[in-house]
Parts: sequence; structure tokens; C-alpha cells
Amino acid sequence: MKLTILFGGASFEHEISIVSAITLKEKLSGFDLNFIFCDQDHVFYLVDPSKMKAVTFSKGEHKKMPQLSLSNGAFVQKGMFSSTAYNATVLNLIHGGDGEDGTIAALLDFFSISYIGPRVDASVFSYDKRYTKWLCDAKDIKSVEYEIVSSDECKVLSLEYPLIIKPSCLGSSIGVSIVKEESQLDYALDTAFEYDSSAIVEPFIEGVKEYNLAGFMADGEMHFSIVEEPQKNEFLDFEKKYMDFSRSEQVLKAEISEELETKLKSNFEKIYRNLFEGALIRCDFFVVEGEVLLNEINPIPGSMANYLFEDFKSSIEALANALPHAKKTKVSYDYIHSISSAKGK
Amino acid sequence: MKLTILFGGASFEHEISIVSAITLKEKLSGFDLNFIFCDQDHVFYLVDPSKMKAVTFSKGEHKKMPQLSLSNGAFVQKGMFSSTAYNATVLNLIHGGDGEDGTIAALLDFFSISYIGPRVDASVFSYDKRYTKWLCDAKDIKSVEYEIVSSDECKVLSLEYPLIIKPSCLGSSIGVSIVKEESQLDYALDTAFEYDSSAIVEPFIEGVKEYNLAGFMADGEMHFSIVEEPQKNEFLDFEKKYMDFSRSEQVLKAEISEELETKLKSNFEKIYRNLFEGALIRCDFFVVEGEVLLNEINPIPGSMANYLFEDFKSSIEALANALPHAKKTKVSYDYIHSISSAKGK
Repeated sequence: MKLTILFGGASFEHEISIVSAITLKEKLSGFDLNFIFCDQDHVFYLVDPSKMKAVTFSKGEHKKMPQLSLSNGAFVQKGMFSSTAYNATVLNLIHGGDGEDGTIAALLDFFSISYIGPRVDASVFSYDKRYTKWLCDAKDIKSVEYEIVSSDECKVLSLEYPLIIKPSCLGSSIGVSIVKEESQLDYALDTAFEYDSSAIVEPFIEGVKEYNLAGFMADGEMHFSIVEEPQKNEFLDFEKKYMDFSRSEQVLKAEISEELETKLKSNFEKIYRNLFEGALIRCDFFVVEGEVLLNEINPIPGSMANYLFEDFKSSIEALANALPHAKKTKVSYDYIHSISSAKGK
Repeated sequence: MKLTILFGGASFEHEISIVSAITLKEKLSGFDLNFIFCDQDHVFYLVDPSKMKAVTFSKGEHKKMPQLSLSNGAFVQKGMFSSTAYNATVLNLIHGGDGEDGTIAALLDFFSISYIGPRVDASVFSYDKRYTKWLCDAKDIKSVEYEIVSSDECKVLSLEYPLIIKPSCLGSSIGVSIVKEESQLDYALDTAFEYDSSAIVEPFIEGVKEYNLAGFMADGEMHFSIVEEPQKNEFLDFEKKYMDFSRSEQVLKAEISEELETKLKSNFEKIYRNLFEGALIRCDFFVVEGEVLLNEINPIPGSMANYLFEDFKSSIEALANALPHAKKTKVSYDYIHSISSAKGK
């Protein structure tokens, strides 16, 4: 199985993506892997697998590596007299901006490079938490109630404390705060606005049951991971989530009823179908009084949630062999021809 | 005013985009214009303005023109010893696929090229008519009732005839049919499925009042065109719409009450704000029993709806000077540094 791991990106989760790629290198050992790093200036570098260490990038050593450019069907390394094309299926592992906002998806679509990862529309609906709420409404999926606050408005919130404040467009708990009373609100909003001009405010449900489930579609069928009940502190902060991205040991299946498992899977499938094909995603659910609520969609989970799958390598292989193909649009000049011939020229 | 008109694209509306670009050349005379053509294989060509004729492209003469590639901040023409960069603001005039589905927007964002046109998220919400309905629901805007049919399902429709059937993702009336009775339904659906695997079905409202309004945001304010009541046949078919893209004469203002004009503008603004900034869009509304319903959003209207603006050139200039700037994300290696120093290396 040949794959190109694409990681980095101009994203607040840039470091996380590096750690994620290093983890994947280990989890997919035996595969024929290339590594392509996208730096914060959007330059692509081909990284020697033996240099896949965090310090390579933090010390800027990637700058000495070969630069690649995008071309039809491949990333290309241009030499003086010849070029080398890297045309393996790409695994988009850029977390956050660039990778999860639809930019990389559009780039790979445009250059006809096949890839594992969310397509442009799926990215838009999962990257911005406001649009995830719209998706839930449209697909009749329950989620936590919410309000939106923009950085340029003074809004009186109607939700009751405690609240959780998140930047609208960011994952990995960056910029997230829990606010227990009104006096803490402004500081929490300012923290969120450092990352986005809009924030989403939700009630913080103390002690809520949380379950994570990952999955993907291959051969017209959903393939699910085990359900995990993540360990909880007040909430997973950046540092803990960060460690999450280097997780590689399989976790224990949550002890839940078959009924709840079925409910989680059916909610997952409703979200996934006709939108996330081509991606392995993780959905984080809350369960409140027996009711399943969607908390978040991770369209590119940290190291693809390898720790939730019994046979991660086979899963990636199945997904890679079932990627959606963009229909090639054939252009016609019929109308121009008919006008020109009517004009007699 | 320097501008690069980007047109063509791998789109069913490829020809329309060519006509649209030729019209814009005339309407923006006096501006310093470059023309970049994107062919169906996603190769970019620099087109000599004197060659901006429909037959240039239908005869394939563009293939003799200089090829351009994307690079940070510009389209670049690479020569043997030096390169020329075309870094003017781009006016995205690719109608339909590529241009309106978010692909070109993402490409220009990634390469930090400033552009007039919808951003990625705005494209997703206007390109797919299903998502436009979700947008309407979320923003509390009324639209025509609808059902979705997929090419792989047999669905019994609950709407009453006559119906209008449209491919979910296409503009310019391509693949659209009016169905007066059930016996015509299958053929109409097949026609739509030639262009998309999903179709949207709406009641066809005979003799409905239709009004078009274009506008954009500059300096924090909405700038509106006049309201037009388009001439009606049963519906505008491809050929008539096609002529629409070469329209360049200003039309007459619809004779409507001030109250209705205000309603149309307030609906437009609700759709536009916090989503379409950077684009000049046209919204097509129906009015049924005094109620305003959104019919369609055209995020890149044919020749930018020049015929609706009293001073089109000044409008484009105002918009070009008020484009959203993507925030540059600064990447940090704090976490990797802290881990490495903890490890003592």
C-alpha cells in the first residue's frame, strides 16, 4: 500500500499535525510511505522518513529538503534535467486550518490527486461549529443548545452558567474556556477571539457522559471503530489533547448497552452519509438523559483515531480503495460553434 | 484599476464563462485588465486581450498562448531565464464547477492571491441548492418548499404538480425541467441526473412574480443594484440565460413599492452578511402573496450582473478595495520545544 502523508499547514494545530504524522509512521509501518510537509508559508517539502522527528521541523531543518510543487496528478520534485512525480494517494493529516477547512481538499481535487480526507463541503460543515449546528438541524440530529457571539458585538447571553466558550473554527481545545459566572465571561470571549472573530457558547454540562466513535465508508458500508468513553478532566485541554495525537495504544471499549451503541452508530451514519465519503472521521457525542447529542465532528482526528480500531492498517487500506472519484466534466463548445456558424464565420 | 479576469474552468458553464469574460472586457474598458483562461484540464493560459473572442477557445487557439502556474501571491509565467508575475487582484468569473463550488476560492486563498468572488464556505452554501435551503432555515429566510431525490433511490414525491426539477449543483438552467404530470417525471429526473447525482424538486408556481437584486459589501455597508423583474417565459432556458451572460445594457427598474424593495434588500442582506463578503452576488426572489421567498443565490452572476448597476465600474472598484484579507496564521513550536527541553535534547 503506497500512501503520501501530508502534514503541517498554516494552522494553530501545526505542531499537532507533526506529532500525528510521526505516530502514523509507526502505526502504518510496512506501508510504502512518503511524507510531505506543508510549512506555514505553504511551501511543500519532501521529508526523508528517517527525519520524521518533531525537532526536524521546530529547528527548521526541513528547509534543506527538496521542495515540491503541485501538478496534474502528483506532487512534483523538479530537477535540473528531470522531474520526479509523487502520485500516491494522499492521506490529508493537516489538522485545523488548511487541512480541515476545505483548502487542501480543493487543492487536491483541482490537481486530480486522490486523497483520504473530507471533501470541500464536508470540511465546511465540520470546521465551523456554527455550520455543524446547521447540519444537525438539517439532518435532524440533536446537539447541545448554543448561542453565537461575534467579536464586534455586545451580546447579552440567555444561556445559564456554567458555560463553555469555543472559537467557532478551531479544534483541539485551543481557545476553549469554561466560564462559571458572568465575571469570567469577557476574558473567556477574548481568549476565543484570539483565534476566531466568532465564538460559540454552550451550556457546560457537568459530569456529562461522553462517547467517541470513529468510522468511514467503504464498499457502500459503514465501518465503525469501538466506542470509547474518553477519560475526563473538566475538559480535555490543549496539552492533554496534544498527547492524544501521539496515542497509539488501543483503548478499551466503553461499557455501554447494545441499544446505546446502536443509537451512536445510527447518529454517526446520518452525519456521514452523502457528505463525508472519503474520510475517516471521529464523532464525539454526549449522552444526556438517554438522549444522544452530537458534540463535535473531527473530520481528521488526531492520528486518525488509530487507537479506536482493532485493525487500523486494514481500515486505512479499505478506505484508500474506496475513495470518491471526482466526475470529470467534459467541456463543450456547441453553443459557440452554433453562434459562429449562424454568423457565417 | 488593475484586475485579472479568471474565466473558463472544467464546468458545464465553461462556454458561458467565456462569453461573460468577453462582456466584462467591454464593460470594464479603461481598467488595466489581464485575462487568464483555465481550460478543462486545469491548465492556465495568459490570453492576449485582442484574442478575447469566443472562437479563440472553441478552436483551441489558446493552446499556443503562454501557460501560467500558481505561486505565492501571483500567477507566474516562467521563462527560460526569468519569470513574470501577474499579481493583480483576480476577478473570479468561472461560473459553475471550479468557480462557484469553492475550488478556485481555496486555490487563491492558499496562494495568497486577493480576489473578487465568494470564499469557500459561501461557495458551498450557494453551489449546492440543498445547502442553500439549510442556509435559509438557519438564517430564517423563506424559500420555496422542496424535496430531494437521489439518482439511486425510487422516491414517491408528496409535492403536487406542476413541479420544477433541477440538478442540485448547477446554475444557468442546465438540466432543469418543468413537469406537468407524473408521466413526465422520470425523463425530467434523468435529465437532471446527467449533471448531478441529486436533484431538487420544487412546486412550479405559475405566473409567480420574480425579482432579481444584486449587491455587495464595501466599507461595512451594503451596496445594492436596482431591482429587476426579469422577462419571463415558462422559465429561462439555457439559451436565453446564455444570452443573459452577454447582456450589457442597463435594464429598467422594476415598478414595485418601496415596502417590497425594502423587504427584498433586507432578505438579501441577511443572506450576504458574514458569508459572502468579497463577492458581488445576485439573489433571485419570488414574491407569493406579498411574501418574499429566496429562489436562488448566484454567487458569480453572468458578467457580474453589470446591467443592474448604474455605475458598474465604480462598484467593482469599491468592491476590489474592500476585499476580506485572510488572517495569516502564525505557527508556533512552543510545545515541541518544551517537550524537547524536558527530554534534555
